Amino acid sequence: GARKMEDYGRFLALLASALLVGFVSVILSLVWVFHYREGLSWDGSPGEFNWHPVLIITGFVFIQGIAIIVYRLPWTWKCSKLLMKFIHAGLNTIAMILAIVSMVAVFEYHNAKNIPNMYSLHSWIGLTAVIFYSLQLFLGFAVFLLPFAPVHLRVALMPIHVYSGLTIFATVIATALMGITEKLIFALKNPAYSASPPEATLVNCLGLLLVIFGSLVLWMASRPHWKRPPAENAKILRPIGATPEGTEVESTMTNSSNADKPDLRSNNEAARKQNIKFDEAGQRSTM
Amino acid sequence: GARKMEDYGRFLALLASALLVGFVSVILSLVWVFHYREGLSWDGSPGEFNWHPVLIITGFVFIQGIAIIVYRLPWTWKCSKLLMKFIHAGLNTIAMILAIVSMVAVFEYHNAKNIPNMYSLHSWIGLTAVIFYSLQLFLGFAVFLLPFAPVHLRVALMPIHVYSGLTIFATVIATALMGITEKLIFALKNPAYSASPPEATLVNCLGLLLVIFGSLVLWMASRPHWKRPPAENAKILRPIGATPEGTEVESTMTNSSNADKPDLRSNNEAARKQNIKFDEAGQRSTM
Repeated sequence: GARKMEDYGRFLALLASALLVGFVSVILSLVWVFHYREGLSWDGSPGEFNWHPVLIITGFVFIQGIAIIVYRLPWTWKCSKLLMKFIHAGLNTIAMILAIVSMVAVFEYHNAKNIPNMYSLHSWIGLTAVIFYSLQLFLGFAVFLLPFAPVHLRVALMPIHVYSGLTIFATVIATALMGITEKLIFALKNPAYSASPPEATLVNCLGLLLVIFGSLVLWMASRPHWKRPPAENAKILRPIGATPEGTEVESTMTNSSNADKPDLRSNNEAARKQNIKFDEAGQRSTM
Repeated sequence: GARKMEDYGRFLALLASALLVGFVSVILSLVWVFHYREGLSWDGSPGEFNWHPVLIITGFVFIQGIAIIVYRLPWTWKCSKLLMKFIHAGLNTIAMILAIVSMVAVFEYHNAKNIPNMYSLHSWIGLTAVIFYSLQLFLGFAVFLLPFAPVHLRVALMPIHVYSGLTIFATVIATALMGITEKLIFALKNPAYSASPPEATLVNCLGLLLVIFGSLVLWMASRPHWKRPPAENAKILRPIGATPEGTEVESTMTNSSNADKPDLRSNNEAARKQNIKFDEAGQRSTM
């Protein structure tokens, strides 16, 4: 009813904010490299380095963020779960490729300029994040997309997949902030970073936008009532005490947005509704 | 049973790891400032600046992390909820005071050396985090500790409190990583940071430990089955369809670690157990 529409409106407002903040971040990274730096090229010059921030912000932050919340988009709930899994995996694959290309750009630039590789905390954590991200993508593909993994394995790994995904995403943003810090210190001389020239202010704002984008994505991803509803076979009332074995993993997630006032038509029905209520309260308190 | 003990053992292993990683981080920050830098003092010299990393890592990372998981410690479940709230609020207050003192140390050092304040992304995000942390503490105290807030307000604000707390914690660690990056670039000259002297390697390892500490705390905080069990009045079997209104907010969180095989002794009992099962599955999928 009205409450549901209000909640839908709130989701759309947050989604629009996240898309806007992510889009402006990509634009600011382009303004940074074209207006204040040497633009883009692939010849060992600073223009090759500049692919690094642009591709990281476009792929490893923005596209990864969209990949995380793609199951939350209400108009996709009528699409098959398999299609949505392909979109989720596809967006993450694009993000991974862009992250790897952006690392190649830095290595080639460093090698051309005789700058050592992999000495900074930024590089240590960034490389670790890319490795974990690739592992996560490979494991997610093998367990959740290919049809071979048994249900109990999917059930056991799903919470780990979700936790790893959100933790890697947060780590990627933290790494981007370190990268911005490094680049501004190294690139700004006369006036220095500490003199707050316009470039410093612009890129600091870019860093703030990345934090806001990450916070919006984490909020949308962790609200239980914005989850994709379970598959139809899980909505069928099971006898009390029956376990959801044999249904899809995702069917164990209930759709609490349908939870209205409990009624007492039947014990089964009331129990199901109370399940949803409990579930909602429990999930909300999780994050 | 055996499964419960195994789960308890897993919690203890993670807790021990987090405490160890946090403790080693504090030790490494002390080794950094005493072995490689100018030690600690309060006279506008670099020794005053050095309070900044030591107090941030001790208070704003380690103590804040403990404050986040303090409700998860099973041996505190026999203590009153009010006592645990005081411990949670007390630890966060200590963390906030240490964070503020550590900021004063930087401002005094900057002013003594005529270094500008608040120009870096590190300072922008760090100050924002301290302001949000103080607001979170104030609001948490007013709503959840003082007895005046109505239950519906506590229920509405709890998921926001949990989300804000975890997001601020992650942001604080990201800010610490930026601070480490800045300090190593500025302090290491001849050999520079890029030459990987022992100090650089040590402090990079410190940064990695902070990420591991944060990941462990976020995992422990977001496992639904490691939550403090609900208050006794919530455990009393309610008639099916009854809402938990009038009980404590926290009583709406069920303790899924008690969820064994459902039995069919009574519909009520079976429904309650299935609630717990659903709750567990739903929460697990949240993060």
